[in-house]
Amino acid sequence: MLLSKSAALAKTTTVQRACRTLPKVSASMASNAAPRKVLVVGGVAGGASCAARLRRLDEQAEITIFERGPYVSFANCGLPYYVGEVIKEQSSLLVANAAKFNKWFNIAVKESTEVVSIDRAAKTVVARDVTTGATSTHPYDYLVLSPGGNAVRPPLPGVDLPGIFSVKTIPDANAIKAWIAEKNVKKCVVIGGGFIGLEMIENLVHRGIKCSLVEMLPQVMPPFDKEMVEPVHERLRAQGVELNFNDGVSGFAPGPGGQGLVVKTLGGKEHQADMVLLVIGVKPEVSLAKSAGLELGARGGIKVDAAMRTSDPAVFAVGDAVEVKDFVTGEHTLIPLAGPANRQGRIVADVITGGEPSRFRGSQGTGVVGLFGLTLASTGASEKTLKRLGRAYKKVYLHINQHAGYYPGARTIDMKLLFDPKDGKILGCQAVGEEGVEKRVDVVAMALQLGGTVFDLEEAELCYAPQFGSAKDPVNMIGMVAANVMRGTHPLTNWDEVDLEKIRADPNALLVDVREPAELDKVGRVEGAVNMPLSSLRQQLDKLAEADKGKKMYVYCQVGLRGYVATRQFVNRGLDATNISGGYRSFQQFGQPRL
Amino acid sequence: MLLSKSAALAKTTTVQRACRTLPKVSASMASNAAPRKVLVVGGVAGGASCAARLRRLDEQAEITIFERGPYVSFANCGLPYYVGEVIKEQSSLLVANAAKFNKWFNIAVKESTEVVSIDRAAKTVVARDVTTGATSTHPYDYLVLSPGGNAVRPPLPGVDLPGIFSVKTIPDANAIKAWIAEKNVKKCVVIGGGFIGLEMIENLVHRGIKCSLVEMLPQVMPPFDKEMVEPVHERLRAQGVELNFNDGVSGFAPGPGGQGLVVKTLGGKEHQADMVLLVIGVKPEVSLAKSAGLELGARGGIKVDAAMRTSDPAVFAVGDAVEVKDFVTGEHTLIPLAGPANRQGRIVADVITGGEPSRFRGSQGTGVVGLFGLTLASTGASEKTLKRLGRAYKKVYLHINQHAGYYPGARTIDMKLLFDPKDGKILGCQAVGEEGVEKRVDVVAMALQLGGTVFDLEEAELCYAPQFGSAKDPVNMIGMVAANVMRGTHPLTNWDEVDLEKIRADPNALLVDVREPAELDKVGRVEGAVNMPLSSLRQQLDKLAEADKGKKMYVYCQVGLRGYVATRQFVNRGLDATNISGGYRSFQQFGQPRL
Repeated sequence: MLLSKSAALAKTTTVQRACRTLPKVSASMASNAAPRKVLVVGGVAGGASCAARLRRLDEQAEITIFERGPYVSFANCGLPYYVGEVIKEQSSLLVANAAKFNKWFNIAVKESTEVVSIDRAAKTVVARDVTTGATSTHPYDYLVLSPGGNAVRPPLPGVDLPGIFSVKTIPDANAIKAWIAEKNVKKCVVIGGGFIGLEMIENLVHRGIKCSLVEMLPQVMPPFDKEMVEPVHERLRAQGVELNFNDGVSGFAPGPGGQGLVVKTLGGKEHQADMVLLVIGVKPEVSLAKSAGLELGARGGIKVDAAMRTSDPAVFAVGDAVEVKDFVTGEHTLIPLAGPANRQGRIVADVITGGEPSRFRGSQGTGVVGLFGLTLASTGASEKTLKRLGRAYKKVYLHINQHAGYYPGARTIDMKLLFDPKDGKILGCQAVGEEGVEKRVDVVAMALQLGGTVFDLEEAELCYAPQFGSAKDPVNMIGMVAANVMRGTHPLTNWDEVDLEKIRADPNALLVDVREPAELDKVGRVEGAVNMPLSSLRQQLDKLAEADKGKKMYVYCQVGLRGYVATRQFVNRGLDATNISGGYRSFQQFGQPRL
Repeated sequence: MLLSKSAALAKTTTVQRACRTLPKVSASMASNAAPRKVLVVGGVAGGASCAARLRRLDEQAEITIFERGPYVSFANCGLPYYVGEVIKEQSSLLVANAAKFNKWFNIAVKESTEVVSIDRAAKTVVARDVTTGATSTHPYDYLVLSPGGNAVRPPLPGVDLPGIFSVKTIPDANAIKAWIAEKNVKKCVVIGGGFIGLEMIENLVHRGIKCSLVEMLPQVMPPFDKEMVEPVHERLRAQGVELNFNDGVSGFAPGPGGQGLVVKTLGGKEHQADMVLLVIGVKPEVSLAKSAGLELGARGGIKVDAAMRTSDPAVFAVGDAVEVKDFVTGEHTLIPLAGPANRQGRIVADVITGGEPSRFRGSQGTGVVGLFGLTLASTGASEKTLKRLGRAYKKVYLHINQHAGYYPGARTIDMKLLFDPKDGKILGCQAVGEEGVEKRVDVVAMALQLGGTVFDLEEAELCYAPQFGSAKDPVNMIGMVAANVMRGTHPLTNWDEVDLEKIRADPNALLVDVREPAELDKVGRVEGAVNMPLSSLRQQLDKLAEADKGKKMYVYCQVGLRGYVATRQFVNRGLDATNISGGYRSFQQFGQPRL
């Protein structure tokens, strides 16, 4: 009966908004049927969430979690801070343990036990005790795969030398801590500039260890557009971190005299190190699913429907190992984040206990990283993703204080908003700054989730007191800039669409700096620009040479606001003008090379 | 032509989502017509925003701002911090000045000039120079009223004695600062516990001045539900602030020997003070509108349509003086906040320049106050408002860390979510705590704006790294609690619906504390409760006395999570149980009197 029910449900593949019509789960639901046997493979985020919710919905089910590592439900996002001794005790990382699962939830947890094969016809799995090697067979009605990912360790020469670590588990972290202490580590090479790589760098630097980063791409944090991480590059360099971009590792060798390690790169460089961290990403752990004949997706993850069901209706999969729908682009993608994994686990529990239609709406890839006082956050699609997919988009930039400028401690946030030119629908947002960054991205994430537009951001009503925000919050402001673009009242050119050399050479173009002369001396100027300060622009416009009247005006100020005001003056006089979004700060911040 | 156009537009009174189809504003729009004459009365938030946007949209318009005070566009929200010397310089409060309006925007600003009458037939106003008394007459095509509000000063005996201040303008703030210095103020009585009253108390306490609050209501911050401000009361008392609730002022008298003041109350008390702040609210300044025969609303504000047009199509009004639609309840209300005032000003500029349909969607009343390290924020309707209107609602409470508990510095946020029992639509949210409070309220505010439900909060994808949030963010968690209530999987009773005396006396009811025995010793217990720790609940349930089996179980833990897990165990065994939302902490925090 259970099988036929779930098989029928499996046909429902339409992706719907989750849970709105979820039927009430009856208390006596399972009372006359045999208890469900549910096996969960992997006991960290998604698996643990699934098991706990399952128990809350069904007291009778027989639930077992298999975890190949020594700990269920540990906080892997805390590992860098544990290495950095910000988190002092290993016990802090243990969100729950086997005893708690047992006492609270009557869930059997088998730690250090790996599921090595699935017999889908017989509905059994074989598990192996990692310590003893003993195997055992376990029947299931439902199987939930939450195996996570494996740290990518390419088969490079020397990759198994001592002192080369991944950062994926508590044992990894303990091994790193022990190595630092024993070898008195002074210098570390971090390979891979993603979330974990950067968090490790911050924590190692705080421990007085010099770090070099080796990264194949020309930037850190690959999900972000390059210009948005330039401030991060600057911050890293200011902390003495050596950045090696556009270079990959070719192999490892012991250091001179057997002391330390040498990291050799494709570009022919050799980096000395006392320790190496290999954090170039996570590959979905699909070996079990693959050998059981479950379908995989194009990106190499386990293929699931919106109910998180694999190609076998009795087998579900969640977390880093599955391919999910990108909420914005509709693409299938891999998003190794704890939040979506937890949501997926809960959905599986709902589905198993009959609570259809519970659907995973896809993932926005909302993410944040903190680094030496900077916060970098994003939600939705990046510009490079939209470009790759050939999706139409518009974008605006904003440099703005996180709270009222008249209150002490105002700090700039650099923001970028991507939206649909057709209807202003939000496609993505990225921001970087020292304070209030993730708050704005969270607000935009919520708007994006609900199909909101730039007009919705413009008229959002957010908390304002001078220490928290502004009467026009950064979210409102970037919404206003974008909404004015949508309305056609703000002719705008982005910093990266401006070719300064070309403008300088073009007799029919004029680069107009509307900042005050004193600012140019202080902050810097752009070669070839005419200075027409906003404070006296009207008078200058009256006198504007006949020769300049037909020219295309490229207007800019420091951050974009005065440029907008000036552009409106030009346009209102019938001149052809465009404002350079984000102004001089965008040039500076995002690395325009030819000022 | 202009009149007939705007008269036609005035018929469009449907409230729509703003700006989606706003036509492109043509550059040459006004080029052949006579320039529009627009007069703006009041140059702070709404008036200043309107005038600036108007200029950006229309270079030809003749725009004049009349401001009866000495400064346009000053940051009135900064006044308490200026008195508290957190903001050191008066100049910091001047967001813009007359010279900037003139240079940037070609807008004439007449400061210290009051508009004293409107001749709507002739379309002129008479303005009076406050300093010289000289009057002048000014014609208009459009008139924008942004007069703000007046500090309420009831005609009590002695109200005009020296040393009794309002906190509305820069001159007010300077007078207070001068009085503190001259009189060496040691003791202040603050009358009124709203935003400004509390911010003034914080700043005065930081300056070493002892404060007493006198407030007619039984709580500070009237827009909030009482239980949510109990932590604020506690914090105020901890700072030595004397709180006098449920008492009003009957009059003022000079202090003994002419030193200081005595504040006399209706309750017969006398409070000695060196200084008194009268901050009992703001009354819309409608005298000009009223004498011009413009319609007022039931709440005493200027009546406007969604385009911010008064009963005269050539006259608009914005800001604290107008009645706006409450976005949640649909009621007309007065919301004296800078954010909505700015949005309204922008809308008027759009409408005047022909950019229909630009509509004010109403106000959610999103607000925040910071106080001695606590943050208190809310959006949408309060429970008392919903009760007053007889609206159906459900509510849940949550006490939760602002970020991952395993990262140092976790602090509790107390949250309350109000939602529609029919469809889970968000009606309002309030939160209080030390960190991350306004971020969560902002996210909920955005969801509320877009018609979001508790299910949307449940599946929100927000920024997570351990120093910023949790894999299940507080927004997710409160959404989950509410969604489980909607689904019927979480039988829940709120702390204020529990009558402990009645339960104790009822032979058919049982109060079940599922915390561990050690916690009860440490944190405190509830009289009459049976302790059945969650860690051994299943075994105890097996042995549950026959006599207890038919009883209604009122289950609670420390904050609600284990109570939920336990309640599911009871319910799954066919017992009648309900979880007390927020658990023991709700009792403690919200002031259940009979533990």
